[in-house]
Amino acid sequence: MPANRDGKYSHTAELKRQDAAHHLHPFTDFQDYAAHPGRIISRAEGVYIEDSDGNRILDGMSGLWCCNLGYSQPGIVEAVRKQLSELPFYNNFFQCANEPSVRLAARLASLTPDNFNHVFFTNSGSEANDTNLRLVRRYWDLLDKPNKRIILSRTNAYHGSTIAAASLGGFDFVHRQFETLPYVHHIAQPYWFKDGGELSPEEFGVRVAKDLERAIDELGEDNIAAFIAEPIQGAGGVIVPPESYWPEMRRILAERDILFISDEVICGFGRTGQLFGCQSYGTSPDLITFAKAVTNGFQPLGGVLLGDRVANVLTSGGGEFGHGFTYSGHPAACAAALATLDILEREQLVERVADDIGPYLQRRWQELADHPIVGETRGKGMVAALELVRNKHTRERLEDGGKAGAVCRQFCIESGLVMRAVGDAMIIAPPLVCSHEEIDLLIERATRALDLTASHYHL
Amino acid sequence: MPANRDGKYSHTAELKRQDAAHHLHPFTDFQDYAAHPGRIISRAEGVYIEDSDGNRILDGMSGLWCCNLGYSQPGIVEAVRKQLSELPFYNNFFQCANEPSVRLAARLASLTPDNFNHVFFTNSGSEANDTNLRLVRRYWDLLDKPNKRIILSRTNAYHGSTIAAASLGGFDFVHRQFETLPYVHHIAQPYWFKDGGELSPEEFGVRVAKDLERAIDELGEDNIAAFIAEPIQGAGGVIVPPESYWPEMRRILAERDILFISDEVICGFGRTGQLFGCQSYGTSPDLITFAKAVTNGFQPLGGVLLGDRVANVLTSGGGEFGHGFTYSGHPAACAAALATLDILEREQLVERVADDIGPYLQRRWQELADHPIVGETRGKGMVAALELVRNKHTRERLEDGGKAGAVCRQFCIESGLVMRAVGDAMIIAPPLVCSHEEIDLLIERATRALDLTASHYHL
Repeated sequence: MPANRDGKYSHTAELKRQDAAHHLHPFTDFQDYAAHPGRIISRAEGVYIEDSDGNRILDGMSGLWCCNLGYSQPGIVEAVRKQLSELPFYNNFFQCANEPSVRLAARLASLTPDNFNHVFFTNSGSEANDTNLRLVRRYWDLLDKPNKRIILSRTNAYHGSTIAAASLGGFDFVHRQFETLPYVHHIAQPYWFKDGGELSPEEFGVRVAKDLERAIDELGEDNIAAFIAEPIQGAGGVIVPPESYWPEMRRILAERDILFISDEVICGFGRTGQLFGCQSYGTSPDLITFAKAVTNGFQPLGGVLLGDRVANVLTSGGGEFGHGFTYSGHPAACAAALATLDILEREQLVERVADDIGPYLQRRWQELADHPIVGETRGKGMVAALELVRNKHTRERLEDGGKAGAVCRQFCIESGLVMRAVGDAMIIAPPLVCSHEEIDLLIERATRALDLTASHYHL
Repeated sequence: MPANRDGKYSHTAELKRQDAAHHLHPFTDFQDYAAHPGRIISRAEGVYIEDSDGNRILDGMSGLWCCNLGYSQPGIVEAVRKQLSELPFYNNFFQCANEPSVRLAARLASLTPDNFNHVFFTNSGSEANDTNLRLVRRYWDLLDKPNKRIILSRTNAYHGSTIAAASLGGFDFVHRQFETLPYVHHIAQPYWFKDGGELSPEEFGVRVAKDLERAIDELGEDNIAAFIAEPIQGAGGVIVPPESYWPEMRRILAERDILFISDEVICGFGRTGQLFGCQSYGTSPDLITFAKAVTNGFQPLGGVLLGDRVANVLTSGGGEFGHGFTYSGHPAACAAALATLDILEREQLVERVADDIGPYLQRRWQELADHPIVGETRGKGMVAALELVRNKHTRERLEDGGKAGAVCRQFCIESGLVMRAVGDAMIIAPPLVCSHEEIDLLIERATRALDLTASHYHL
């Protein structure tokens, strides 16, 4: 660990003491954290974060899939400052609107696929998916089909952390901690490496898609309100589906009278080389969930984009929609989003992911497939994963049951790289603004961490 | 309407067109709004907002109960700007913490009642109450009492707008729009003017409190996890309970083994003349929900303060708590909160509400009780309400069933004042920084609006 600067040891020690004593962290073992407080992140620049001891770490996860333009974006900072100076807040209730929220709604409508013309703002992807359930319910109620109440989702999906959003998600360990909504039903996920068996990825993609058809038949199309899915499951382990999966899903969705919600909280705003992941996969959602990268993570903001199919019904009647948040369309958050979209367009970053840095990352990432501890690499655009294994030919796992990822993750940090572990998968989603040299450095440090992990497991 | 400036007519027309075409507003009739787009708020200064036509309006609602320090607070703006320049975002997952979230957790622990030492951050009050359900469930699970699952709340309560939070709330028109959580049970509210009948307020306060005792007996103490309540119901119509209510509730809660959640999203940070409403009423919650004023509304932030009873159990085991938000403890939001608390303390605003501006507002507000259309005034600190009636002696309502508030609200806007209507109650929650002269102006404009409303109803 490099020597710290500015006499920061005591500063860091005091922060760690306060953190352990008072701060309950998300998705954390509270008992463990109180005994072993974590790293204090103090600064960030470009694609690097820096902790309070002065360690500089290449952030391969864009914060938490959100800082897609990296940490140095003075244009966004200035937009927030200016907005906070002119109108720091006003709500969009009671026949009022603040300017940035109106401008952002119009801007999003102009950027998104042609049939998306309406936006409902929230503070987060969690609140946006929670909102989706309200929108979907109202849609079917207004069409006088109240029996359509089941929501289909997928195992190992992630759709946020309110009780409703976490019910949509497909994480068993989370579901055991509360009472899930009774009307959410989970179908299979397109995780070939785990579940593909002897099938080819393409065979598996078609087979697993048919689980949607089977569920609709079993539960009854008249009872199903919507299906929700991430184009690529993110927190589940960057499950890039076989190329055959979405075409078959699209066929089934086109034949059935259910709504389709594309959760673009991770894929949205360029990650896959198109503005939204649904565009990369050619699907036609009725609702799009967005959050995270819309503000480059600089401000909390989420929302739902409504396609005309839903919006036309919702704007035709029903009276007051009894839903919304104090900060639905917070002016500072919307100003940050407008500045973020300016940069995304001006620097042609979506095109860059499609034509330059995305293919470069994927080519270099693919080289890791030759590493003895790597059973598979997969990726698309600026998101990728690899699977840690004992035997790359048989896909045999390492022996300690899904904990190899955490071991590798620690070696990554020690090597100056943030990668995230999901069981025994290692995942990355680096900023879209990474240079080729920064991708090279990411691969170099990832390789070092893989070497150390292989050595740890005596491979 | 004053002449507009800077040739803003076309500007306003274009914004209204975009707003109507693309922006779905919270708690709004979408069909109606598309046909009659609202007012565009463009600037704010001190305790005034200004629309895009140049109309300047005294904001009697502090935005949406959040801008307690008014709109001109350069210290908060600068804190956000500085934070966004140094570390615009980093998450608190995966054994990491960002500095402002740690500092804010420690600061809140130092400010709050002695037994509150832990904080879990969210983006909003909605997410915070959603989080409360997860915390409460985990608490009883770890104590091996999984049957304690019912949550008691009150009719006409407001606890946010996720599916879980809106289930906690007690708004019938909202509940009709989705499937509420089956384990939330609502008891009576202390709304003397509506339900008090021939009882004195003090008799009614004790009687209605006993509904909690009755519900616990009927549902079984062993089946009840928690009771949630706002010290003063806000969105329900500023229901200031009779002085006898909370002492009796406190007696019942002390006798029973259920958790008590004080939802301080509105009352918190000085509104009632103490830091929290529970301190004004002498109750002893186990969990405190906060949001809104913690950042003066300048940034989205919410959270739960955990008393030691709950925190000691949650930090003693259970493994990973599978809950949290990307922006749990967003550095910019936490920096805004730290700056807000600086101002609150430096300017001794809580004390000012208790000793100066609060009593002044209440004295002046009380004068409105003499108005022929006013059936009751009520208030505490810097929050108040009045009831519009046909007959102030019999409490007979105006004839058009709860729509008089909307009529009066429109007269308020035309008189240059934001008051909120809740049925036939008019409510205010002005900034704590209001001068005496601004309170005088508020009363003057409110009186004008009441005169116009009385005239409208031929009183």
